[in-house]
Amino acid sequence: MDRRAEYLKKADSLKPRLRVERVRPVSGLPAEAMMEGESLILDFGNHQVGHVTLKLGYTGSHPDAPAWLRLKFCESKKELGQSIEGYTGWISRGWVQEEQVHVDVLPREISLPRRYAFRYLRIEVLAVSMKYRLTVEDAWVDAATSADDRALSPFHGTPEEEAIDRVATRTLRNCMQDFFEDGPKRDRRLWLGDLRLQALTSYATYHGDDLVKRCLYLFAAAAGDDGQLTACLFTEPKLEGDDNWMADYALFFISTLKDYVEHTGDKDTGRELLPVAMRQLELSESYFDPDTHLVRDGSAKSLTRSEQAKGPELKADMVDQSAFFIDWNLTLNKQAAGQAVWIYCAKDALRLMEILNETDGHDALSAKIELRSRAAVEKLYDAGRGLFVSGEGRQVSWASQVWFALADVLPAEDAGRALLNVEKEPDAAIMVSPYMMHHYVDALYHVGMGDKAHEVMLSYWGGMVDMGADTFFELYNPNNPDESPYGSPIVNSYCHAWSCTPSYFLRGTAKKT
Amino acid sequence: MDRRAEYLKKADSLKPRLRVERVRPVSGLPAEAMMEGESLILDFGNHQVGHVTLKLGYTGSHPDAPAWLRLKFCESKKELGQSIEGYTGWISRGWVQEEQVHVDVLPREISLPRRYAFRYLRIEVLAVSMKYRLTVEDAWVDAATSADDRALSPFHGTPEEEAIDRVATRTLRNCMQDFFEDGPKRDRRLWLGDLRLQALTSYATYHGDDLVKRCLYLFAAAAGDDGQLTACLFTEPKLEGDDNWMADYALFFISTLKDYVEHTGDKDTGRELLPVAMRQLELSESYFDPDTHLVRDGSAKSLTRSEQAKGPELKADMVDQSAFFIDWNLTLNKQAAGQAVWIYCAKDALRLMEILNETDGHDALSAKIELRSRAAVEKLYDAGRGLFVSGEGRQVSWASQVWFALADVLPAEDAGRALLNVEKEPDAAIMVSPYMMHHYVDALYHVGMGDKAHEVMLSYWGGMVDMGADTFFELYNPNNPDESPYGSPIVNSYCHAWSCTPSYFLRGTAKKT
Repeated sequence: MDRRAEYLKKADSLKPRLRVERVRPVSGLPAEAMMEGESLILDFGNHQVGHVTLKLGYTGSHPDAPAWLRLKFCESKKELGQSIEGYTGWISRGWVQEEQVHVDVLPREISLPRRYAFRYLRIEVLAVSMKYRLTVEDAWVDAATSADDRALSPFHGTPEEEAIDRVATRTLRNCMQDFFEDGPKRDRRLWLGDLRLQALTSYATYHGDDLVKRCLYLFAAAAGDDGQLTACLFTEPKLEGDDNWMADYALFFISTLKDYVEHTGDKDTGRELLPVAMRQLELSESYFDPDTHLVRDGSAKSLTRSEQAKGPELKADMVDQSAFFIDWNLTLNKQAAGQAVWIYCAKDALRLMEILNETDGHDALSAKIELRSRAAVEKLYDAGRGLFVSGEGRQVSWASQVWFALADVLPAEDAGRALLNVEKEPDAAIMVSPYMMHHYVDALYHVGMGDKAHEVMLSYWGGMVDMGADTFFELYNPNNPDESPYGSPIVNSYCHAWSCTPSYFLRGTAKKT
Repeated sequence: MDRRAEYLKKADSLKPRLRVERVRPVSGLPAEAMMEGESLILDFGNHQVGHVTLKLGYTGSHPDAPAWLRLKFCESKKELGQSIEGYTGWISRGWVQEEQVHVDVLPREISLPRRYAFRYLRIEVLAVSMKYRLTVEDAWVDAATSADDRALSPFHGTPEEEAIDRVATRTLRNCMQDFFEDGPKRDRRLWLGDLRLQALTSYATYHGDDLVKRCLYLFAAAAGDDGQLTACLFTEPKLEGDDNWMADYALFFISTLKDYVEHTGDKDTGRELLPVAMRQLELSESYFDPDTHLVRDGSAKSLTRSEQAKGPELKADMVDQSAFFIDWNLTLNKQAAGQAVWIYCAKDALRLMEILNETDGHDALSAKIELRSRAAVEKLYDAGRGLFVSGEGRQVSWASQVWFALADVLPAEDAGRALLNVEKEPDAAIMVSPYMMHHYVDALYHVGMGDKAHEVMLSYWGGMVDMGADTFFELYNPNNPDESPYGSPIVNSYCHAWSCTPSYFLRGTAKKT
């Protein structure tokens, strides 16, 4: 029953052709000839992902020494001013898009071997010689994406909405490469949690249905021997799942497959991958306490992500001991949100089975959902305060309210009230990522608070647009735009797929939820 | 009469095939897996010139971030300990063989695009991630030379002589590439002064006669419109003479052609290039004062090398105002040595004409040599002190005695006495380069002081061998081995062609002079 080789074959057959457009800088050229210590900034007009070629020349005598250059590729203008020196954060410095290059012969066109995600390129002359200066005669990026710009559905809204939609679609587009990357600067990987949101947004914009299908097969092909899906995977040098498991991400395979089949009508794929999806539900049983029917508080310690500790230098305080990701907030207790995510995904499993006329196990699952929903309301819902709480410490968080609203365990009014009540809790664990903000907006829509949802979306994503974003960021705290959980914004990703969903909301797809 | 295109065609037809040998490190592998900040030194056993490939892998989890490496290629062990930071010398920092490389996918073989001259390679991990360590599984250099190792004439001497010969031939060999390079690390260019010594040594060792011929044609092809030969030339991206003229180097074309024809018997080449050679004599007339028949003291200011001042940042104190190079000693007055070099080369022109049975102009040149030799003895020879002096300041220098000995203007005993007398002059301008040391040794042989010549050679070049040299250095001051006229030894060239002549002397060719 090991179908992984077949899944990989199917995934490979769906590998997209990259569409390449040659883009030249809108400013920075022509520039003065440069001597040692001088530099030049090229602005490529928008966020680009691709390979860069520089046409270099000289003035003065025939170069009698190699030119030595430092090239710094930046997604956002502010990165230009940030230095890699002194960066000691825990995300690898290897992600900083900075190169040193020697050019032995001038004039010459140099095509850099790596792909960059950037809008700005600073070229700094580390050395020429006394006899010549360096000139940059031309520069271009062969900007690549597997998105088809002609397929992009038009969108008409207010200027503000259109601006947000433009940035959101650019974000998605530039993450659409051989697969749905989370970020073309960092991590350039396929994450299941991101894929789900990219797929939803793609249905409303670029219609990259085959890319979604390919990614579903890639995950199926990279499953562990026990059928467990990894949170993310690598495709180079060959397909390999990361040793990084997240309970919610694995469960989202169900939702992503359900969404795909629902959107495309491709029931063959649904049927082929249904066992992979259902296996995630089976595996998720280990998270539950059979007595309380609740996700164990912190129970995941010995079950998941512990394998990460194999990493040579993993710092203990960076390891989130929970099985669930939910959000980039290390103080968040994830019992409640985890419970809700499970219910949400299990309901999607039911729906998928219904679409596929698969009755086997349907009623048993339905009963289990019922049981666990009831347990959640009984033990995690504080009816007096109108809020869900989580864990032994009965932590109040935004995430818990959001996910229980999406999981539909309370009447919509009560769920909506919880979303309002949490605003009055100054100590509630906050939301820190656009990924979590997506679910907040989605929850507001879901409980019928569309105006507020729209307002939150305009304010949060609009804040990035106001900062001059060409694409939406991996992380954005409106109260502290320079914040980075990694120690420095220099390793931040300013084009990150999980932030692309405003186009999904704006284009009305959300209303169907 | 512009035959330059034909010369170039002939030079191109003589372009040698590079012989490539794959060389692996003798130590450094296998190494421990490395994390950020760790490094590894590979020792390739001897000086190598070529392209390097690294086979990289990892331990731990699948790499989730690019590896970022700093690679430092060093000809000598002591370079390993020297940093490019803070180097402010006037030679371009672009020569330092240090790269930074990002590796996106592991495992991977990376073949570096540039050629390096080195024995040691330090691989330093600037970044990996917390989840993996870098391994260097294999490494090799495709070491290239156009010298044919099988053609190397054997040499038998004392262990000391054999050690010097081994280092000297390695020096020559590794400079034999597409043309005779001055140094494969720096400047990687064809210099006429170096070519003459490389050719002489090649006749006694690797017999790269065609490479000498190719280089003669390259110079002829790169001549200025007035027929002036450049001191050095570039072959990439296409043949171009440097705007760097040196009176002595241009005149050495005559000697190099004479030596070539004498050694090979190839009179056709001699006849074809004779006009190019003779044109250098005509052009050299401008250096002379017609009244004194002496090279003008400092007269060359407005005539040669002034074009260098076009270089954007040329520092005034770096410009040697003399037309002659002679040696890397900026305090040297070059009138006397320049006069002697002219006489030396003019005599070679006479000899070349005789070999080719070319009588036209022979007697006139002979008379001019006579006139200028007499003027030199009358005005530059201080018979009382038994020394040649130079310039208005009547400077005593080693170079003046050396070149007048080689120019044969005095009886051998007197010339030899001048070479001894200068030892007693503590203020005499010293010799600073192996290039000048070659001429000193050559002069000692020439005046019949072979034992002393041999002793000087063993002591000077043997000193480098004692320091562990694999190849002979561009610069070597036995009293201060770390000296660099460039501000730091980090830009020194430790394999430099003009230092390869011990093999020429040891193999007896010198005695014929």
